[in-house]
Amino acid sequence: MINRLVIVGVGLIGGSLALALKKAKFVRNIIGVGRSEVNLNIARDLRIVDEIAVNLSDAVAEADLIVLAAPLSATRPLFAELRPILSETTILTDVGSVKGGIVKDAEEQLGASFCRFVPGHPIAGSEAKGAKSAFAELFLNHNVLLTPSQKTDSSAISLVEDMWRAAGARVSLLSHTEHDQNLATTSHLPHILAYVLMNLVQDESGVDKLESMVGGGFRDTTRIASSDPEIWVDIILANREEILSACSQYQTKFTEFIDALEVMDGNRILDLIKRAKHARDTLVIPDANNA
Amino acid sequence: MINRLVIVGVGLIGGSLALALKKAKFVRNIIGVGRSEVNLNIARDLRIVDEIAVNLSDAVAEADLIVLAAPLSATRPLFAELRPILSETTILTDVGSVKGGIVKDAEEQLGASFCRFVPGHPIAGSEAKGAKSAFAELFLNHNVLLTPSQKTDSSAISLVEDMWRAAGARVSLLSHTEHDQNLATTSHLPHILAYVLMNLVQDESGVDKLESMVGGGFRDTTRIASSDPEIWVDIILANREEILSACSQYQTKFTEFIDALEVMDGNRILDLIKRAKHARDTLVIPDANNA
Repeated sequence: MINRLVIVGVGLIGGSLALALKKAKFVRNIIGVGRSEVNLNIARDLRIVDEIAVNLSDAVAEADLIVLAAPLSATRPLFAELRPILSETTILTDVGSVKGGIVKDAEEQLGASFCRFVPGHPIAGSEAKGAKSAFAELFLNHNVLLTPSQKTDSSAISLVEDMWRAAGARVSLLSHTEHDQNLATTSHLPHILAYVLMNLVQDESGVDKLESMVGGGFRDTTRIASSDPEIWVDIILANREEILSACSQYQTKFTEFIDALEVMDGNRILDLIKRAKHARDTLVIPDANNA
Repeated sequence: MINRLVIVGVGLIGGSLALALKKAKFVRNIIGVGRSEVNLNIARDLRIVDEIAVNLSDAVAEADLIVLAAPLSATRPLFAELRPILSETTILTDVGSVKGGIVKDAEEQLGASFCRFVPGHPIAGSEAKGAKSAFAELFLNHNVLLTPSQKTDSSAISLVEDMWRAAGARVSLLSHTEHDQNLATTSHLPHILAYVLMNLVQDESGVDKLESMVGGGFRDTTRIASSDPEIWVDIILANREEILSACSQYQTKFTEFIDALEVMDGNRILDLIKRAKHARDTLVIPDANNA
């Protein structure tokens, strides 16, 4: 059990982590820090955190572990702010959906503390936001990816691994490059596909006219279009290069499909559909109602 | 209550309709017809239908209503087969996902009975198939679209409307042209997007390598890629022109998004995401675990 955990950004992710770690008795005291006093008060009233602080330097004194759970664009200034106030033992991690830029920022900003920074990304979440939407089971059986570098202390990695396992998650380690490439295809591109589809439907007919015509397929395909826009514009800009590459590969394959339909090549279309089905049926994904 | 209902194709759709109509006491006797004797025996053993028949002409004699719930490509030959054996009072409907071709086929093949054919499309289903996957609640609060023509008898429309309402569905009427245009965008295109995404992921990395990296967003976005390939190649070929048009509009909008990312136009991206989120949040979709 660690003594003092600081969570910067007590939203769905930060708040759920706090609840899970309390439940698992992983930590004695949790201090919530954030920009919105309204949200922090909710977090305290719901007993998600034990204390709240608006002043970062008060909060992080004597912290064993700090979790940065703020939006991506708020993280870089946090590193700069933390540098002078971090102790030589405090371990730091984050939950950002893109890792390359964060690692670069951290290396530039954190100085000697960089070796105690363990970049992380829990593959969990939903369209909900704010402390009020937090729940202790959010990470149960979900994957968490850590992308430490050669310079990261192994004891720091161990603590962050232990933390996520205490929250019920499965932990994998990989390079930040591999992470950003893969997530561009499995997460960022699918969000863009859903945004484009919703805008097409809206511009063509207006969604209200289509209400009688859409079912569960459309509902599920477009669910992620409801995600928080501010968070997602950050993610997409932060992983621009990898996403552009994934989009370009997608366009090539999309055009192949259209070409087969253009010439009514039923066998080719059937083959493309069968391969897609096989790949999808092979995939095992946690079936919780979130992620 | 009608006396005799024939369901041709006792799969997920036909079987679930049978169960729902029995439960609602809409029909006294349900006769299941199909090509697979194994499936028909399952349907009878599970008491989904009262009787089974492999011979269509035996089955349809004295039928009040016939529901064609076979795959699209099997429907055209059914019209030809039915023409000489249909009585002058038997009403006919179908459940095909594309309506233009079916209406044309029916008009060509059914002769005088065409006025008693009510083209239909329940917006319900799942990746499951066969009689064993049928359940009475499949259509509950789901939409059913009927696309009768000027020539369709109003009494035939009424009976088919009553049937779907008895099964718990909401019924809307529209032209087959409007149906096929709208479904190209809200259903057929989303399937193609999911197929292309699965094939991209598979060809890039292999789905097994990605298991630790995918979450609920990817799961939901790609769920429809698991649909039955034989059924979907039929649908896509049958609505070729409308789908090509939807794909082309999609490509234009996709390229717009990519262009904004290329030049790092964060305001434009945020605007596109916000509009998509607003449209998605506005949409009310039945939240059953199917459709």
